[in-house]
Amino acid sequence: MTTAPPFDPGAVAARVEEFVRTRVIAYEKDPRLGSHGPSDELVRELRALAREAGVLTPHVLSDGEFLSHREMAPVFRAAGLSPLGPVALNIAAPDEGNMVLLRHVASAVQQTRFLSPLIEGRIRSAFLMTEPAEENGAGSDPSMLRTRARKEQGQWVVTGRKAFITGFVGAGCGIVMAMTDMGPTMFLIELPHPAVRLERVFNTLDGSMPGGHALVTIENLPVSEEDVLGEVGEGFRYAQIRLAPARLTHCMRWLGACMRADEIATEYATRRHAFGKSLIEHEGVSFMLADNRIDLKMSELMINWCAEVLDQGVGGTVESSMTKVAVSEALFRVSDRCVQVMGGTGIASDTVVQQVFREMRAFRVYDGPTEVHRWSIERKIARSVLTKT
Amino acid sequence: MTTAPPFDPGAVAARVEEFVRTRVIAYEKDPRLGSHGPSDELVRELRALAREAGVLTPHVLSDGEFLSHREMAPVFRAAGLSPLGPVALNIAAPDEGNMVLLRHVASAVQQTRFLSPLIEGRIRSAFLMTEPAEENGAGSDPSMLRTRARKEQGQWVVTGRKAFITGFVGAGCGIVMAMTDMGPTMFLIELPHPAVRLERVFNTLDGSMPGGHALVTIENLPVSEEDVLGEVGEGFRYAQIRLAPARLTHCMRWLGACMRADEIATEYATRRHAFGKSLIEHEGVSFMLADNRIDLKMSELMINWCAEVLDQGVGGTVESSMTKVAVSEALFRVSDRCVQVMGGTGIASDTVVQQVFREMRAFRVYDGPTEVHRWSIERKIARSVLTKT
Amino acid sequence: MTTAPPFDPGAVAARVEEFVRTRVIAYEKDPRLGSHGPSDELVRELRALAREAGVLTPHVLSDGEFLSHREMAPVFRAAGLSPLGPVALNIAAPDEGNMVLLRHVASAVQQTRFLSPLIEGRIRSAFLMTEPAEENGAGSDPSMLRTRARKEQGQWVVTGRKAFITGFVGAGCGIVMAMTDMGPTMFLIELPHPAVRLERVFNTLDGSMPGGHALVTIENLPVSEEDVLGEVGEGFRYAQIRLAPARLTHCMRWLGACMRADEIATEYATRRHAFGKSLIEHEGVSFMLADNRIDLKMSELMINWCAEVLDQGVGGTVESSMTKVAVSEALFRVSDRCVQVMGGTGIASDTVVQQVFREMRAFRVYDGPTEVHRWSIERKIARSVLTKT
Amino acid sequence: MTTAPPFDPGAVAARVEEFVRTRVIAYEKDPRLGSHGPSDELVRELRALAREAGVLTPHVLSDGEFLSHREMAPVFRAAGLSPLGPVALNIAAPDEGNMVLLRHVASAVQQTRFLSPLIEGRIRSAFLMTEPAEENGAGSDPSMLRTRARKEQGQWVVTGRKAFITGFVGAGCGIVMAMTDMGPTMFLIELPHPAVRLERVFNTLDGSMPGGHALVTIENLPVSEEDVLGEVGEGFRYAQIRLAPARLTHCMRWLGACMRADEIATEYATRRHAFGKSLIEHEGVSFMLADNRIDLKMSELMINWCAEVLDQGVGGTVESSMTKVAVSEALFRVSDRCVQVMGGTGIASDTVVQQVFREMRAFRVYDGPTEVHRWSIERKIARSVLTKT
Repeated sequence: MTTAPPFDPGAVAARVEEFVRTRVIAYEKDPRLGSHGPSDELVRELRALAREAGVLTPHVLSDGEFLSHREMAPVFRAAGLSPLGPVALNIAAPDEGNMVLLRHVASAVQQTRFLSPLIEGRIRSAFLMTEPAEENGAGSDPSMLRTRARKEQGQWVVTGRKAFITGFVGAGCGIVMAMTDMGPTMFLIELPHPAVRLERVFNTLDGSMPGGHALVTIENLPVSEEDVLGEVGEGFRYAQIRLAPARLTHCMRWLGACMRADEIATEYATRRHAFGKSLIEHEGVSFMLADNRIDLKMSELMINWCAEVLDQGVGGTVESSMTKVAVSEALFRVSDRCVQVMGGTGIASDTVVQQVFREMRAFRVYDGPTEVHRWSIERKIARSVLTKT
Repeated sequence: MTTAPPFDPGAVAARVEEFVRTRVIAYEKDPRLGSHGPSDELVRELRALAREAGVLTPHVLSDGEFLSHREMAPVFRAAGLSPLGPVALNIAAPDEGNMVLLRHVASAVQQTRFLSPLIEGRIRSAFLMTEPAEENGAGSDPSMLRTRARKEQGQWVVTGRKAFITGFVGAGCGIVMAMTDMGPTMFLIELPHPAVRLERVFNTLDGSMPGGHALVTIENLPVSEEDVLGEVGEGFRYAQIRLAPARLTHCMRWLGACMRADEIATEYATRRHAFGKSLIEHEGVSFMLADNRIDLKMSELMINWCAEVLDQGVGGTVESSMTKVAVSEALFRVSDRCVQVMGGTGIASDTVVQQVFREMRAFRVYDGPTEVHRWSIERKIARSVLTKT
Repeated sequence: MTTAPPFDPGAVAARVEEFVRTRVIAYEKDPRLGSHGPSDELVRELRALAREAGVLTPHVLSDGEFLSHREMAPVFRAAGLSPLGPVALNIAAPDEGNMVLLRHVASAVQQTRFLSPLIEGRIRSAFLMTEPAEENGAGSDPSMLRTRARKEQGQWVVTGRKAFITGFVGAGCGIVMAMTDMGPTMFLIELPHPAVRLERVFNTLDGSMPGGHALVTIENLPVSEEDVLGEVGEGFRYAQIRLAPARLTHCMRWLGACMRADEIATEYATRRHAFGKSLIEHEGVSFMLADNRIDLKMSELMINWCAEVLDQGVGGTVESSMTKVAVSEALFRVSDRCVQVMGGTGIASDTVVQQVFREMRAFRVYDGPTEVHRWSIERKIARSVLTKT
Repeated sequence: MTTAPPFDPGAVAARVEEFVRTRVIAYEKDPRLGSHGPSDELVRELRALAREAGVLTPHVLSDGEFLSHREMAPVFRAAGLSPLGPVALNIAAPDEGNMVLLRHVASAVQQTRFLSPLIEGRIRSAFLMTEPAEENGAGSDPSMLRTRARKEQGQWVVTGRKAFITGFVGAGCGIVMAMTDMGPTMFLIELPHPAVRLERVFNTLDGSMPGGHALVTIENLPVSEEDVLGEVGEGFRYAQIRLAPARLTHCMRWLGACMRADEIATEYATRRHAFGKSLIEHEGVSFMLADNRIDLKMSELMINWCAEVLDQGVGGTVESSMTKVAVSEALFRVSDRCVQVMGGTGIASDTVVQQVFREMRAFRVYDGPTEVHRWSIERKIARSVLTKT
């Protein structure tokens, strides 16, 4: 919960930007950063700073209201200026998306147990939906859900295997999607739990998310009836509630990251010389930076447009698919150009540019690969039901 | 001049769209269409219809005020749904840009003589600035201006050669840029004039602009002191006034054209079958159409953003360069995909898709090729003066 | 028939290049050039010159043998240096492909009647296979063949509609594909014939092929049993014989055309100045020309590789699909960059660059669009039968 | 030294491929693999296996002769099928390029001391040429060389700083480029040496080269006159000898790596299902794999062409620039598509696909970034001295 004045999101964004630039960036070389982002000790330290600066969970107001998506955009972008920013401010995936889901679906009792500590930044959470590819489980296609929940002696018992579970290691709670006789259902669980066992953490290209992405086995996990999230059989519908906004906040955060990478590459190109002049005086370099400007602006505009659609409360699925494809592909190009402008220095981890490039490569796959979104966009076109705007 | 109600540009756009769809599209196979668009007889016929429908010069209100750029965007886009639309509605290049220039710089007397008949759609005009490449004259680089004006016995005498003069053939007036001892200067002339001689009309890829693009020789053209447009020596500054808005309205009109091409290609892909299913059921086709959706939306958003910057009245040069590059490249991709989706039918002139493709290829060169804009964007980045938005 | 020495294809290519550069290019502004290439009068004049220079039909030796595909490559590329070259030398589509087909399938009598006058350059021919898209006829998917041939009183009677029939207008003979009770079959016909009626010639982007591309109605066309080409029911198999080689010679000819366009653009960039230096001194321009070099070289190597596979006489379908996609896409990029380097001059028809651009756009669709080839390449991958090389 | 029969490079390639597939791939998950490739212990183990299989240093024959570049191509490609292959077979950078340099320039005594143990795979080596970007030292532009060597009391004393020195950690010898009063000069040194101090190893995207890429300080390093490599003042000329072949063997090895990635992705796409069918049955996936086939083939052909040019012994600089750009960009596309096809599995290190992607990203920068090569290609075009082929 934040003390941000409710009526001026621009001021919130400015404060977030200043906080990230003056406090968070200094931690980018902290030895407690591992291949999966900051250790939980470092997360606590960063959040203490954010709390003190009044920018922790900046999108949730003191009365419990959330900023609109359009208001969030500049705030999340500012947080993204450092790969550590979203975690420091408690607006990172999957927690941020889980807050949205719990806010809309959880009961008051469930909100007290699961949502409040999340908003307060005291715990992290996991969203256990996707399943292993090698078993042809639910990946981009949720209809392939293999994890099962059966009712036994008044309580649910869940068994299955989940893959790419972001933030599982270190999480204090989780939301598990499983198939029941009455359809896909979501279950709230506290973590760690002996029936939910870590197989391994994937060694992935990206590395900004505490806990990384885990492979998890669930074996006879008991869940009481009170811990069913919403209604039994409504799991896919609830996943939709979380899906489009979570996709969009990813775009917001990564836009900030790529603006930072572009700043670094521009500064590098201005300072460094080759063949008799500064790099930026070479059209071969400056054209790449010009294209970055265009891609960054287009990304910003797509995000704002989609945010406004989501704020209207109707539709937004196709719009968020369009935005996810456009923004992830554009930001990948931006980060790739930054690496190229900086040559060997871009390949090395001396600046965050290398990490941003790796994150952007993963982003084109996470939250549905580009191809799945193209497919769903076109299905809508074929059905002629694309929201007219 | 139009009777459009001043307070509802959305209604204007709707009326324009209906007019273009129900009246203008029917003329797209008219035999009076040549390789450079409609004959002047056909232009008169189309404008009579537009006048009758209350959509002629729809961006100029009855009190002489102009719509803001942001208000113009949907109106010009709607007009662009047919390659004939902008000419029919009297908002085509170069007339539309010349109206802007005359409105801001011309004296009251000059406005009566030159601006009023333009707004009323009674004459067409030409803008004689660019010069032949083979003589290394002023093309994308205006500093290479070779046409000269000298003062002789109280009047100016202009001599030079101008290339790619759109709409020269059939124009009733023109604006000539020439170098004087006091710097570059604009002169207003009535056309045709014996001292301004057509050498030839270029046979270009595009073909929607009446009169085409001409090569013109000016030999000892006398211009009186009253026909100097604005101040002597201020020609380049005035060119800037015209430049950014003219660039942007091009984007607006062509966006409409590409939306139309995409409609046609989508309809074709739905109806036509190959290898056992409709084309749109092939991901190889539907992914192209999905990418079209994204490119069209991004183009719309860039145009609206740039329009708002221009409406603020300060800056906008870099923003219009960014928009021109982004939109012309995106719309070229859109038109290229439409051709590809339609196969042989896209290569043929059976629909306007082929023409739209040719126009988009030219658009990447006209109004400054992509490379010149990238260069000027980056010069601004290097100077760190990009308008923060 | 040519007097080219049979043992030195390099010398043939050199003579062809000299002939095209010194004799053919001079005709590129001839007033007898229409929107579909040279008039038949101009074709005769050009072929007379080629005959005199000993370069007519240069791939067919005096003993009736044909050059191998690998030997053809430099010869056809040299001919392609002018869009008029292939017609002048009698190696243009569809005649060149029809010669291949007739050589392999026609009987001795048929060869005397149809193949000899083709090789001698005395007539042109048409290949009537593809059918109208709007009727969902055989386009890229030949299984949709709708034209029918039935046996009546000892002779065949053919009825149907054919679209995009290159060179139909002015052709002296044709090969018609039609479905019989025993399967798809090819028929040889003399043209013009009253039962084979021109509906219209498409107005296409490309324009180098005499006669253009026609829409044709066949109504009760009688064909005697002797004029069946090869066996009844074997039409699709014969089409395959023609397909891969015809695809490849297209690549060879267009490679020459793009090498010429690149020469023109390079020369232009060297001579023309902007912003204080020659265009080629701008990296924004020179990088495009460097990429042209790479694309031209890759195209040449793909062509040579595929030619060697075809010369082995086994397989080659997938290889020619790979080559067609790679080369048509690469050459389109080359021609697009040439237009862009030359700005307005590239958009105008002042040089052949504009035409080459239009031809390359059509090339990405003709002979199977890129997407159809990708699909067939991948089908082979899935079947793991791609020829190992 | 190998016992490979000198007359059949095809058989060598086959033996190498079998060795890599049956022996080397098994080590790809070995715990001794760090972020910079195999430990030196693991290198020794792999090379013992290679020696035993008769495939160690397979391009150097028992009589000391080297395979031609054209003969090397399939051998190096086969070795590249595993990222561990080149190191295992002792044909990795920088050793392989250093062998070329020493073979051409070193004296007999120097060859015994430095070249023989390299060929025998007993030591590794480093090439100390490039300098730190932050000091604007010699990177892609070797004229910025800042490391100095001065003659003092009969011996050379070298001082400077070198960056991105591949394989420095663990190397047994090195070649140092430094500026003398008589021009740039190469010096042979034994490593480790107290005057050549490791500052740090860069944490780079790529990770297949033992020792990684180091930042090194050289302070008053004494070198005797006998350890000057070749002539004083000829350092740049010798660098050229090494440059083009080293660039090309990189292309060969990485082609093998991408062929392997493509195999893995194809197998994945065949086995894994989504939305009701296998991934490869989705055109959105199969078109990516079809494009891979084309890019792989074009890369192979460019490599073979450039190898033949180099084998002629004249020129090859521009050709190797063209090949390096074409191949590195094509292979990056291939590896990027493999990641995309495999989704989350491609992002994770479960297969070598992720590593191959990272290597390919670095490859676009190493050995001269794409932009520097484009620039040098075009400089040649402008000078019209491109080797005609």
